[in-house]
Amino acid sequence: MKIIKTPHGELKTPFFMPIATQGAVKTLSSFDVERLGSPILLANTYHLYLRPGMEVMTKFGGLHNFMSWPGAILTDSGGYQVFSLAKMRKLSEQGVEFASHIDGSRHLLTPEKSIQIQQNLGSDIVMVLDECTPPCMPPDELKLSVDRTTRWAERCKIEFEKGRVASNNPGAQLFGIVQGGTDVELRKKHAENLVKIGFDGYAIGGLSVGEPFADALRTVEALNKILPQDKPRYFMGGGQPHEIVEYVKHGVDMFDCVLPTRNARHGLLYRFKHTDLTQPDFYETIHITNEKWKSDQTPLMDAQPGDPIAEELSRYSFAYLRHLFVSEEILGQRLATLMNLHFYLELLERLRA
Amino acid sequence: MKIIKTPHGELKTPFFMPIATQGAVKTLSSFDVERLGSPILLANTYHLYLRPGMEVMTKFGGLHNFMSWPGAILTDSGGYQVFSLAKMRKLSEQGVEFASHIDGSRHLLTPEKSIQIQQNLGSDIVMVLDECTPPCMPPDELKLSVDRTTRWAERCKIEFEKGRVASNNPGAQLFGIVQGGTDVELRKKHAENLVKIGFDGYAIGGLSVGEPFADALRTVEALNKILPQDKPRYFMGGGQPHEIVEYVKHGVDMFDCVLPTRNARHGLLYRFKHTDLTQPDFYETIHITNEKWKSDQTPLMDAQPGDPIAEELSRYSFAYLRHLFVSEEILGQRLATLMNLHFYLELLERLRA
Repeated sequence: MKIIKTPHGELKTPFFMPIATQGAVKTLSSFDVERLGSPILLANTYHLYLRPGMEVMTKFGGLHNFMSWPGAILTDSGGYQVFSLAKMRKLSEQGVEFASHIDGSRHLLTPEKSIQIQQNLGSDIVMVLDECTPPCMPPDELKLSVDRTTRWAERCKIEFEKGRVASNNPGAQLFGIVQGGTDVELRKKHAENLVKIGFDGYAIGGLSVGEPFADALRTVEALNKILPQDKPRYFMGGGQPHEIVEYVKHGVDMFDCVLPTRNARHGLLYRFKHTDLTQPDFYETIHITNEKWKSDQTPLMDAQPGDPIAEELSRYSFAYLRHLFVSEEILGQRLATLMNLHFYLELLERLRA
Repeated sequence: MKIIKTPHGELKTPFFMPIATQGAVKTLSSFDVERLGSPILLANTYHLYLRPGMEVMTKFGGLHNFMSWPGAILTDSGGYQVFSLAKMRKLSEQGVEFASHIDGSRHLLTPEKSIQIQQNLGSDIVMVLDECTPPCMPPDELKLSVDRTTRWAERCKIEFEKGRVASNNPGAQLFGIVQGGTDVELRKKHAENLVKIGFDGYAIGGLSVGEPFADALRTVEALNKILPQDKPRYFMGGGQPHEIVEYVKHGVDMFDCVLPTRNARHGLLYRFKHTDLTQPDFYETIHITNEKWKSDQTPLMDAQPGDPIAEELSRYSFAYLRHLFVSEEILGQRLATLMNLHFYLELLERLRA
């Protein structure tokens, strides 16, 4: 277990970060996330840069105030969303030009700009701008991309130090991101280069993008030996509960993933079957709209002392939650989101213990 | 002030009932409604009869258990929704045949059936089945309709007493509903007939359906003299905050209205301007998506001791709520719903004081 100290609290690893894409974990308030007991959440730079925009963020002195969140915030660089959401993008050594998915307006995201936005957001853990390569990229292109990502990482570090004092969070940390697809040698080389530059933590990017789990795990395993033992490692964007267990075994400290929240909104729930996490069947998934739950009186969770969300969820049955989903009541999405995030947070708590 | 004693708590009049159409106040949980401090909510018989259906409700022993709501519940008769939502309806002396808006299945809602469903739901305040007449109905038709509503009310009372002991809530009350459009003489006559049958309370139905406020108020005023002073009067389905103030002046004890919740979901907020309720401008409405709120740091509410919802809402600014609406975050609808219901409940609290 490592402890990451941030200006907004200490984080014991391994931990999972709920995703507050646009400054809110979908269906939940900051108060709800506090009650869930998460000490950190992740927010998306691309979204918040476009809306509400940096002028509003400056006025509020950062995202913590804007969304009334007292805990820590990790922000991504904005790069991933530029590549997945923006209408148009043009990549160059300088950065990436894109058109907003909201109004088509043109923007240029450079390594420097990404850091400036994250410092304006008052992020506690700032990520470097990288190019997240697709799994199918030809080897020579992949190498060129990784080299550029290294150069961008250097520029990010310079900008980060330059803007630190005037930023909305001078005590923030900067993380590098290892790319290189599933080419283990390229990954190792990239990790070594990033370690030379020197970061507060290292993320493993470009996985959980469609590659087989075995390939991702092999990559994580190889990097485990190279990345500094005393710095946190962050596996970006994954994964399923049993995968997280494996990644933790191989030294990963931090996770974020849309699965618990996105699945919740589609009525797919996670529930522990038993507490032996060495067995891959330690949990089950439930399709709540299935007829079999129609009159099931089992509570969504058992009440637990000192756990306000478990207490709240213990009031409602699977039958009631099914009714809410079948009747298209928004409350259903909210209760399912609380339930799934509680599961993921409890999973990581068990892995810490 | 009257006090209505129910098996699920005492209700001090005048009061406002949040609407839990399908067993949930839209976007809120029962826990939220408890924190709002409402001792009662209203649920819709038509919806719950069709979904989840009476088999599930029987298994749970009623709606209180199903939705985990410890307070009182008033149920409507189902008639209003049959007339406004069902795909087809055929009215006869026996009752009203209709096709479900969900799956087209055919059902017959009789006065007896309406009572049976409400007793199965375990309602604390059961409403008689009536025909809610449109404002434009010709006088002779209106009279025939009101006479049938009287005969239905008699049948409801008989069925209510017959089913009481075996019901899911033997301590429930039965309310009659005065119809007669805006024909004051017909209204008075109908009220007298209902009083002869004898009910625990009297509702004024068929208003708030598009008629001018002055006509509605005149009707309420006329009935104030006829309805028993010691029985609660319930104005169904209305109204705007300043209208409620007027109705209370004319003896109305109970209200339900979709305005605070439906408007909330469309980003229209209510806020007090001052506490002098004798002035019609005591409140204002806010279109939260308006540009003027973009960077407004004012809290949605001021924190008040012992008021958990005000405390929660005091964390978030108008700018944040605007951002949630503009970004189509579901949380926006939820915060606005809490805010508007808090306003309506506080309005009635002030009227009680």
